[in-house]
Amino acid sequence: MEKICVLGAGSWGSALAILLSKKGYEVSLWMRNEKQYESMIKTRENLKYLPGVLLPNNVNLTLDIKEAVTNSKIIVLAVASQGVRKILKSIKDFTNKDQIIVNVAKGFEKGTNLRISQVVKEELPYNNYVILSGPSHAEEVSKDMPTTVVVASEDIKIAEYVQDTFINPKFRVYTNPDVIGVELGGALKNIIAFGAGMCDGLGYGDNTKAALMTRGIREIGRLGVAMGAHASTFSGLSGIGDLIVTCTSMHSRNRRAGILIGQGKTLEETLKEIKMVVEGITATEVAYNLSIKYGVDMPITKEIYEVLYENKDVKESVINLMLRSKKHEMEEVVIDEKFNF
Amino acid sequence: MEKICVLGAGSWGSALAILLSKKGYEVSLWMRNEKQYESMIKTRENLKYLPGVLLPNNVNLTLDIKEAVTNSKIIVLAVASQGVRKILKSIKDFTNKDQIIVNVAKGFEKGTNLRISQVVKEELPYNNYVILSGPSHAEEVSKDMPTTVVVASEDIKIAEYVQDTFINPKFRVYTNPDVIGVELGGALKNIIAFGAGMCDGLGYGDNTKAALMTRGIREIGRLGVAMGAHASTFSGLSGIGDLIVTCTSMHSRNRRAGILIGQGKTLEETLKEIKMVVEGITATEVAYNLSIKYGVDMPITKEIYEVLYENKDVKESVINLMLRSKKHEMEEVVIDEKFNF
Repeated sequence: MEKICVLGAGSWGSALAILLSKKGYEVSLWMRNEKQYESMIKTRENLKYLPGVLLPNNVNLTLDIKEAVTNSKIIVLAVASQGVRKILKSIKDFTNKDQIIVNVAKGFEKGTNLRISQVVKEELPYNNYVILSGPSHAEEVSKDMPTTVVVASEDIKIAEYVQDTFINPKFRVYTNPDVIGVELGGALKNIIAFGAGMCDGLGYGDNTKAALMTRGIREIGRLGVAMGAHASTFSGLSGIGDLIVTCTSMHSRNRRAGILIGQGKTLEETLKEIKMVVEGITATEVAYNLSIKYGVDMPITKEIYEVLYENKDVKESVINLMLRSKKHEMEEVVIDEKFNF
Repeated sequence: MEKICVLGAGSWGSALAILLSKKGYEVSLWMRNEKQYESMIKTRENLKYLPGVLLPNNVNLTLDIKEAVTNSKIIVLAVASQGVRKILKSIKDFTNKDQIIVNVAKGFEKGTNLRISQVVKEELPYNNYVILSGPSHAEEVSKDMPTTVVVASEDIKIAEYVQDTFINPKFRVYTNPDVIGVELGGALKNIIAFGAGMCDGLGYGDNTKAALMTRGIREIGRLGVAMGAHASTFSGLSGIGDLIVTCTSMHSRNRRAGILIGQGKTLEETLKEIKMVVEGITATEVAYNLSIKYGVDMPITKEIYEVLYENKDVKESVINLMLRSKKHEMEEVVIDEKFNF
């Protein structure tokens, strides 16, 4: 069987390595951390990020990224968004243009405000790029819970190749030609999950959170359409599907971070407690910048930005979002419909 | 202040009576059950459906529906969908055409497959009709949790009048001209909540449920558009907003009923355990009939219909929904977009 490498042994990278190895692929799972490597070699388990799930024998653990990448037909990027460019630079010299890059990170590059596809285009301009996204907690995928995801690529044949590679009876993979929309849905939903966590942390109920999520997916969609995505993608798996799973599950570190902020913790205290990368925090900053660049109204993103970066009171912020004073206000869907979203 | 009557003292009727009375309206809360009446007169609390919340003094409890309706500017219909026609027939003789009917029931009339607005049109053809819907658990509204709802009417001025009547700083009311869409969203989401409960009952995770909800809102939207609703309404408060709150909260009796079915209980055992009306069960039958009438593909509704009415195995049913065998399948949003939804 073909060789595939997974770069990054967090929960999602590990779950995908296991999934692919069970389909018979020769999988190399690369990680940077030597301690993690030693532990995983000894226990055949990712004790830190995916405890309780054994790695099949055909998952080859490695610290040698060149070994992992060489001869792999597919290179799965399973690192945090901020680490993507560095990884790409480090593999540039021994990749060839026939290797397909499958990105599973859901975020932006800080500073440049770029989507991951754009970062890949800059570093590996001749390789085909596929984004794999959707409502898919790693913990559940590793337990064979029925899961659906979507793969998007500019080239439908490449998307279908990746679909065939990852699909199994419990892991259903659909294609979508809208790379921008699928990327943005996955990245921007973390902002709303963060806001949903804030609502939970403040002790508000399901009504409040549902309102936030409903308005959230619309502002995500507005930015997406302005950036060239298809509106309908945001009502699909990588849009509301991923939004729902992220906002309602305790698996989501973005939501958990929001809960801590809602309870009055500082950003610093929150990050210390979560320990993992919280993509939503960078995403908030990037989306805030993009909303200004594209002239798109994103009230939820703006409030969260002010809470995170300008010390705005979190309670005041949620109240602002919920309690707009305008009377006789029509529902957003009616107003947006005029703008074809 | 004006008089308003609320017909039906379930959790939602009671919560709305309290909300309106706090705004200073003279509120009559009518109920049929004498025992409930006696308990509520004594305790000033709805111990069965809304425990822990006191009824303000200006909520007038009554068993006399004529007394409740007479001189009320607004008549709030807060009974189960199957009871609406009977109530309307009973008040017909003493209503006048200036009274506004505000319906908060989310369902269909069994047998006729009619929406509540159509039932009202048949029984009280000269009265203005408003549907009030959205993600709004009564328990949370009664505790002043921030909540958003939408009111729809054919006449925007009437919708705005009702908006002004119900709105308060924690209960935000938006208008939407799409009566059909708002009615269908609220009624059909109960089917998906039932299915989400089935997934939970079978022990599946958040990934599975999010996939079901994402596909669910699309099949609701497809039927809605075929019946004359606006597609965008289904991505609003009465669409995904209400779907999210109903599918993820234990407050939802539709979801709880689905959990019991998922755990292997029969429909009869389930109804005995829930004790309250489960609108989703009738809605499944009606939506199944409507999907045939309008030629709309509704795979989730069909599977749940077969579980409820044709003894199909619940596990087989969920597997059918998740594991379609077709290869190279595009995401539904891409396919539906061609049909303008």
